[in-house]
Amino acid sequence: MTRVTVWNEFRHEREDEAVREVYPDGIHAVIADFLDERGFDVETATLDEPEHGLTEDVLAETDVLTWWGHDAHDEVSDEVVERVRERVLDGMGLVVLHSGHFSKIFKRLMGTTCNLKYREAGETERLWVLEPGHPIAAGVEESVEIPETEMYGERFDVPAPETLVFTSWFEGGEVFRSGCCYTRGAGKVFYFRPGHETYPIYRQPEVQQILTNAVEWAAPSDGPAPSFGKHSTPATEE
Amino acid sequence: MTRVTVWNEFRHEREDEAVREVYPDGIHAVIADFLDERGFDVETATLDEPEHGLTEDVLAETDVLTWWGHDAHDEVSDEVVERVRERVLDGMGLVVLHSGHFSKIFKRLMGTTCNLKYREAGETERLWVLEPGHPIAAGVEESVEIPETEMYGERFDVPAPETLVFTSWFEGGEVFRSGCCYTRGAGKVFYFRPGHETYPIYRQPEVQQILTNAVEWAAPSDGPAPSFGKHSTPATEE
Amino acid sequence: MTRVTVWNEFRHEREDEAVREVYPDGIHAVIADFLDERGFDVETATLDEPEHGLTEDVLAETDVLTWWGHDAHDEVSDEVVERVRERVLDGMGLVVLHSGHFSKIFKRLMGTTCNLKYREAGETERLWVLEPGHPIAAGVEESVEIPETEMYGERFDVPAPETLVFTSWFEGGEVFRSGCCYTRGAGKVFYFRPGHETYPIYRQPEVQQILTNAVEWAAPSDGPAPSFGKHSTPATEE
Amino acid sequence: MTRVTVWNEFRHEREDEAVREVYPDGIHAVIADFLDERGFDVETATLDEPEHGLTEDVLAETDVLTWWGHDAHDEVSDEVVERVRERVLDGMGLVVLHSGHFSKIFKRLMGTTCNLKYREAGETERLWVLEPGHPIAAGVEESVEIPETEMYGERFDVPAPETLVFTSWFEGGEVFRSGCCYTRGAGKVFYFRPGHETYPIYRQPEVQQILTNAVEWAAPSDGPAPSFGKHSTPATEE
Repeated sequence: MTRVTVWNEFRHEREDEAVREVYPDGIHAVIADFLDERGFDVETATLDEPEHGLTEDVLAETDVLTWWGHDAHDEVSDEVVERVRERVLDGMGLVVLHSGHFSKIFKRLMGTTCNLKYREAGETERLWVLEPGHPIAAGVEESVEIPETEMYGERFDVPAPETLVFTSWFEGGEVFRSGCCYTRGAGKVFYFRPGHETYPIYRQPEVQQILTNAVEWAAPSDGPAPSFGKHSTPATEE
Repeated sequence: MTRVTVWNEFRHEREDEAVREVYPDGIHAVIADFLDERGFDVETATLDEPEHGLTEDVLAETDVLTWWGHDAHDEVSDEVVERVRERVLDGMGLVVLHSGHFSKIFKRLMGTTCNLKYREAGETERLWVLEPGHPIAAGVEESVEIPETEMYGERFDVPAPETLVFTSWFEGGEVFRSGCCYTRGAGKVFYFRPGHETYPIYRQPEVQQILTNAVEWAAPSDGPAPSFGKHSTPATEE
Repeated sequence: MTRVTVWNEFRHEREDEAVREVYPDGIHAVIADFLDERGFDVETATLDEPEHGLTEDVLAETDVLTWWGHDAHDEVSDEVVERVRERVLDGMGLVVLHSGHFSKIFKRLMGTTCNLKYREAGETERLWVLEPGHPIAAGVEESVEIPETEMYGERFDVPAPETLVFTSWFEGGEVFRSGCCYTRGAGKVFYFRPGHETYPIYRQPEVQQILTNAVEWAAPSDGPAPSFGKHSTPATEE
Repeated sequence: MTRVTVWNEFRHEREDEAVREVYPDGIHAVIADFLDERGFDVETATLDEPEHGLTEDVLAETDVLTWWGHDAHDEVSDEVVERVRERVLDGMGLVVLHSGHFSKIFKRLMGTTCNLKYREAGETERLWVLEPGHPIAAGVEESVEIPETEMYGERFDVPAPETLVFTSWFEGGEVFRSGCCYTRGAGKVFYFRPGHETYPIYRQPEVQQILTNAVEWAAPSDGPAPSFGKHSTPATEE
């Protein structure tokens, strides 16, 4: 059974009435709930726990980590970021959500600024499936409408995704690469744009379906652990 | 000096008054003119010429071929298509324009249906640059507005482009991968969506800039001609 | 349960004593056996059956097709090739084996010549895993030695794979991209180099592991069937 | 005229007699010389200069930076690394040489460990061209033999290159992705494996040809500078 740790900054929901109305127990609670219902073994972790809830032990027992952060990216300690990065390179999957594009861990794995355009105007987003054969698009219609959302627009300053599963259309004239697959080390990374603290997007069934698929896709397979460094003996003589 | 052959079906312009008003001498004449002004060595060829104007000699002296077709894809002979394909694999660049997505040569090189959605409603298109560092985006703003055009929408049934330079937004809610780079054999292929027979899109300076860049990018470099087939002597003993 | 059809030309094994010794019931029998043992629902089909055993009904009930051919590629009818291609674009997985690089179906889906270098000298091949996190590398060591094989060498004239899982080293000085992933339409395509009619390579456990992984990877997911063609109603008004 | 800054750690050549014999004035002097002869505007910079010779002014006037380091990666200041990274994201090309795979700047841009296997045994390397149509392969034979070199072997822990131009074969049984193209921000990055301090590899004409091509390829084009951050006005109303 795939073990998922749902990480959330969990500040907005405690400090902002509007957010609390949408996610009274925190965004992580909603995500954890639907993943649990789909049969994953789910735990949660949040910023204000010791070591942000991401101890060596927790990470060692996590197959896929989902990440939601927004206002407090800088409060995540560099030590924990490096610990997460090493686990990803070692094979743990990472699903980065919405404003997590600016998290330390995502920027660290991408090598770029991960910058973009944004506008909070409750616009309609239409998420188009570009790769209908990709497992992350399973069980989804060819486009998904998100009635009200914050706009993210290109240029999204990331390396070109290995697979671009979704691209979004926004009412105000922008487009965005909304579903981006990467491999880093032995780990799979999926960036998914939709989701915002003041809209109930993580309650939308299509979004839940996509995130379920993403977690399954990002789960580690049992590949070889490569040997690195000095190899005095040629492979032909081993 | 890069030698360009601008190919056009050249039927609409002779048969349809509305098209003739926009392109009285044919779409190829407009494209050839601005490429000529930019310093390329330009010839044109059209469907109704013998061998569609694409003889062995013409192709042998072509560095980059641009392709516009729409209504008469099926009238292009399979023999000429195969001849063009072999030249592309051998290194000739190919720039496929708009409705050329359904040309035999493009479908043959892609291996897929190259199907898409379309709507003729004079909608606004906004072409966003996804890769600002790519040579085909040189001299272009971060987005280009095309005031009135035919819509093309995803799913565009092509292999994922090696580089996706542009993505289009359309008024009616669709998106489209509008600038797609491929390599086939030693040849470079660029698909560019904008351009339609009833709108003066090939007269728009930004579009002319992009097509100029595309032709430069697609021009062959002087790489090795690989040897194929039986090699009885190991490389180590040559 | 994933339904696999194992296709084989099945000529060598009936006509050539040396091949019959290695694969007395045909290469397809060996492949079908180990896939069956791994829990797939397996059927076989061969060239000399009516419609090469690949009727509409057979293909409709096939999730993944594996393809081995060598001497009689030209005897596969264009009609069946087109039928297989349509099923791949529709989502069926395709695993192309060794000399299948020159099959009509693979060349048709790639758009290129699929040419390469070869040498039959019983050389050692060492297959290196480039992507240890890819599901096709699950359960495999970081390199696999194939004691005796036919050499295939670069330049392999295919489009760059979307994911390059394996690259081979050969005793005589050549390298080869031996495990190549592609998407065509909604279908996944995997080309796997090792395997030859006069060496018992499909009896090697590591090769069986890789092919098992490949079949699992190539199985269709339940993605959307995109709508194509004229869409008079904007997506925003639907 | 493309402005190149050739950076070198420049320690080995001053401290180690064996290296000094091969590169008496430093590796940078040899690289700068042949680039100068090919018509580039070339400067050099080394670790022990103030700010490692990479001041804001120097970088502002550099189109392409080449990087050779080995023993003293950790002595490069984080501030200068970040400055170089920002210039790459802004469009400056970066050509990373051999042991530069472990430089801070390359690891920072890749997001991974960039680890690999190595062996110093004076083995023969054969560099195969995988993409004969790529500009970095211009003027090169389909394979290049390097008579004696240090081996680097896979797994090379980097993100899959956007284009893989070369793959190396080594006498001892290993393979390596030796010519890897990336885009980071608006900047192009090329990693090139051959080259070592105790072998005269940068004096080999084929290697000089490849590096010349790489510098030309990596030079910035004049693309748009994307706008980032808050965009209160929809693109449709601008």
